[in-house]
Amino acid sequence: MRLSLLRERFKPGSEIVSLTEVGMQMRYELYYWPEIQGRGEYVRLALEEAGADYVDVARGDGGIGAMTRMMEASSATPPFAPPFLKAGKLVIGQTANILFYLGGRHGLAPKAEGPRLWVHQLQLTIADLVLEVHDTHHPLGPGLYYEDQKAPAKRRTEEFWKERVPKYTGYFERLLRDGGSTYLTGRRITYVDLSLFQIVAGLRYAFPKRMGGFERKIPGLVGLHDRVAARPNIRAYLESDRRIAFNEDGIFRHYKVLDA
Amino acid sequence: MRLSLLRERFKPGSEIVSLTEVGMQMRYELYYWPEIQGRGEYVRLALEEAGADYVDVARGDGGIGAMTRMMEASSATPPFAPPFLKAGKLVIGQTANILFYLGGRHGLAPKAEGPRLWVHQLQLTIADLVLEVHDTHHPLGPGLYYEDQKAPAKRRTEEFWKERVPKYTGYFERLLRDGGSTYLTGRRITYVDLSLFQIVAGLRYAFPKRMGGFERKIPGLVGLHDRVAARPNIRAYLESDRRIAFNEDGIFRHYKVLDA
Repeated sequence: MRLSLLRERFKPGSEIVSLTEVGMQMRYELYYWPEIQGRGEYVRLALEEAGADYVDVARGDGGIGAMTRMMEASSATPPFAPPFLKAGKLVIGQTANILFYLGGRHGLAPKAEGPRLWVHQLQLTIADLVLEVHDTHHPLGPGLYYEDQKAPAKRRTEEFWKERVPKYTGYFERLLRDGGSTYLTGRRITYVDLSLFQIVAGLRYAFPKRMGGFERKIPGLVGLHDRVAARPNIRAYLESDRRIAFNEDGIFRHYKVLDA
Repeated sequence: MRLSLLRERFKPGSEIVSLTEVGMQMRYELYYWPEIQGRGEYVRLALEEAGADYVDVARGDGGIGAMTRMMEASSATPPFAPPFLKAGKLVIGQTANILFYLGGRHGLAPKAEGPRLWVHQLQLTIADLVLEVHDTHHPLGPGLYYEDQKAPAKRRTEEFWKERVPKYTGYFERLLRDGGSTYLTGRRITYVDLSLFQIVAGLRYAFPKRMGGFERKIPGLVGLHDRVAARPNIRAYLESDRRIAFNEDGIFRHYKVLDA
């Protein structure tokens, strides 16, 4: 943020905004696996849209070691798993929790309690969907390879597309239709819109055939995806090498047999 | 809350506390399936510990119909799934989100931002564990009956006990040991302690044999379970008919073949 703008914000009579609140002097450290989008991607999208100053630690010189050391270090608040975000003295884990924190600081969520909880609730519902996406290729648990659970993966994926995708996307379609606005909760973008962009992009990557037939049923989500992708900061991010390509180690994996 | 105590709180010079904050005049409506503990139980435990005024709507005369009507009603914030809580004009969904809301109002979470996010983060990790418990009997998805997925359920349960239970419980054991206090985050109970009580109780119900051998590895969690169970409001609740018994429609199910 430019100093002139900062001075503007702090001049007498202007709304009082703390340095932390405008993101000044705060360089966030994001800790996540360096070779996948995974759950970290929802945080990256928020940081990028906000134009926040951040470093994607495990993608730097320290690599994964820097991340695992943080998890093992004696600390009062060790995260259970990546992603986690270091924000000054705080270390915040759980994707939706990180977004809750960032949303309040970077204008990516409403300030009032009710709307703020509502946006968080929507993110938690997206988190449930993300877990179900993961389970399509890992129905027997995260500890086994996909190759060791191909048959149950096929069955779970059928169920996922028959019951779960229509249920989740139908819910968000209804909200978009009833809201009738640019973004899910109004004219201002929130981290939920960024996450729904990622859901559409991910389903397209993992299941191109199935999505090809399904997209006409979710015009609201497809339109939202396009509006998010066209935002300057997001477009610049998607074109940069900071955006890791989808691949078969992440949450959204393209296995032809699951897309039949 | 007695009026005399209320007057005490509001007399000049005392800390300013809003009526909402002390839970006055607010009768919560909890909406959840009436015949299982399920995810609603984490909310029930918080309401009971807080001594909050609430009605478990679907267990009343309106039954499940009262709940589904709320979900289908035209509303700006329809919940995706139960449980959800009506608190005045707010309708709050997602278990961890409800607890975040209640925790701040009833002294079941710290007030400061960092500790409050930390407690929420722990709850989200518990939510992940709860979902993995559910997947032990539903690895192919929530849409199929257990009877249609017995073989994969057996495999997922083996993986769950080999890898996931030690990982999750080891994490909370470490926190309890390092914290060295009565409850997970200090001397004051939070909704996370209530939820961990439920985890221990649930694992005991679903997997009595496995837990019998495993409990010596988690003395911290067993101790915490006992301290929570001994709290007057929780004890009274557990002895009342408001506490639904564990059964094979909930999250924690006892199937002998999975407990071998």
